[in-house]
Amino acid sequence: MTATNLKSGERIDQLYSQNIQIIQSPEVFAFSLDAVLLADFAKPLAKASSQTVDLCAGNGAVGLFMSSKTRGKIAEVEIQPRLADMARRSVTLNHLDDRMTVYEGDLANVTDWIPKDSVDVVTCNPPYFADLPDSQKNPNEYLAIARHEITTNLATVVATTSGLLKMGGKAYFVHRPDRLLQLLDLMAANRLAPKRIRLVHPKPGKEANMVLVEAIKDGKPGGLRFLAPLMVYDQAGKYTAEVQALLYGQS
Amino acid sequence: MTATNLKSGERIDQLYSQNIQIIQSPEVFAFSLDAVLLADFAKPLAKASSQTVDLCAGNGAVGLFMSSKTRGKIAEVEIQPRLADMARRSVTLNHLDDRMTVYEGDLANVTDWIPKDSVDVVTCNPPYFADLPDSQKNPNEYLAIARHEITTNLATVVATTSGLLKMGGKAYFVHRPDRLLQLLDLMAANRLAPKRIRLVHPKPGKEANMVLVEAIKDGKPGGLRFLAPLMVYDQAGKYTAEVQALLYGQS
Repeated sequence: MTATNLKSGERIDQLYSQNIQIIQSPEVFAFSLDAVLLADFAKPLAKASSQTVDLCAGNGAVGLFMSSKTRGKIAEVEIQPRLADMARRSVTLNHLDDRMTVYEGDLANVTDWIPKDSVDVVTCNPPYFADLPDSQKNPNEYLAIARHEITTNLATVVATTSGLLKMGGKAYFVHRPDRLLQLLDLMAANRLAPKRIRLVHPKPGKEANMVLVEAIKDGKPGGLRFLAPLMVYDQAGKYTAEVQALLYGQS
Repeated sequence: MTATNLKSGERIDQLYSQNIQIIQSPEVFAFSLDAVLLADFAKPLAKASSQTVDLCAGNGAVGLFMSSKTRGKIAEVEIQPRLADMARRSVTLNHLDDRMTVYEGDLANVTDWIPKDSVDVVTCNPPYFADLPDSQKNPNEYLAIARHEITTNLATVVATTSGLLKMGGKAYFVHRPDRLLQLLDLMAANRLAPKRIRLVHPKPGKEANMVLVEAIKDGKPGGLRFLAPLMVYDQAGKYTAEVQALLYGQS
C-alpha cells in the first residue's frame, strides 16, 4: 500500500508494541488509549478455528490490536461507512485480509452476517455518552456517533453481544465508571456473568475514568475479581511502565 | 478504668491515629484493618444532633474510630453479649458514654431501640462469608459468628440499614469484592444508590481483597465514582504512607 491510498486528512499511525499500522484521521476518527487497553484486556482464543467479533469497531483499532493474540477469525462491525472503509484499508495494510472481515452496518443486524451463539469472544468500546436531549453533542457527526448513543445504545450492545456468544464465550467491554452499574444490570439481564473488572485511573490518587469488564455467557454467579488498577500516568506525568509497554513495546 | 476491668485474655490496644483505646481479645474478637478503613471512609455528620449507627459492631471499633469525626450520637448494635460488653467498656474507657450507646441484640430488631427513617449515617462491616453448608466454619464460635452469615446475612443487613436511614442518609459498607454484585443488587432493591466505591488492594499489582461502598438512601441513579485505590503495603512489604497515617497518625 502506498500513501496514495490515503484519503484527504488521513494518516497512518503505528502501534509500535503490536507492529500494527492503522489509518486514521483526526477529523473523522482516531483510536485512543481505550482501544489499546481493551485489546490488551481481552483474551481472544488463540486457535485458528476461533471467532472474535469487535462491535462499534470504528477504524478497526481493537480488532487490529488483538490480531497478534489469535490465529482465528476476527470480524469488525461498524455502522459508519467512512470508518468501516478506513478499517478495511487498515486490514489490507497489515496483510490480515485472510482472517479479518469488516462488516458495515448496524450491530443490531449482526446476525445477518454472523450466526447467533457462534462466537468465542466479543469486544466492544461503545459510545460512552447517553444521548440525552441536554447532552452537548460534538458538531462533527463522525465523532458524535462514535461518542454518543445516537445509532445504538448500551442495552442493544449488551443484548447483541450476548446473542452472538456461545455458552461460555467471553465478552469484554470498556466504558466509563459512571455507566458500570447500568452495564452490570444489562449483563445480568442478558446471561452475562461479570468475572473480572479492572479500573483505569489517569494517575495515582485520581478517580477511575475508565473501566474494563470481562463477562462469561452463562457463567455461574459469583467470583467477581477486581484486578490491580491500571495507572496511565505516574506522579511526574509520564506514562507508567505498563502503558509505555502497551504503546511502544517492552523497552 | 484500671487493668482490673479487663477480663481473662483481654488487652487494651490503641489506635494511635485516633487516640482511641479499645478492649479486645484475640480469642474472642480483635478489630482488623477493615474497621479502620471503614471508619476512615465513612462521613458521619459533624453536628451534635446527628445520629450515626454501626451495625455488626463487634467490639465497637468502627464507632469508636468515627467518634472524633462527629459531635453527634453513635449507636452500636452487636448480637454477641461478650462483644457488646467489651464495646461498652471501651466506650467508658474513652469517656464517650454521653454520646455512644451499645445495643446488644439482633440488628433485625434495631427499630426496637432506634426509630425507622431517623438516622443520618449507618456503617457496617458485616460477616464476609456466606454460611453455605460446605463453608469451613471457625471452630471458635465468637469468631465464626463475626465472620460467617450465621446470625444475620447481607440481605438483612442492607434492608435494616435502609430502614434506619433518613431520605438522603448515607450507608457505608466494607465487604469482599466477590460479594459486591450481591451488595449492589440488594442496595438497588432497598432504595440505596451507590455513589462512591473504593477498592483496597493488599499491595501494588495484586487484586483487591476489600471494597468500601458509599450509598445514599433515595439518591438519584447514576454518578457512581471509583476513588483512587487504597494500597495497604508497598512493594517492599511496608505499610503505605496512607495506611501508616490511618494507624499511627501523620508522622
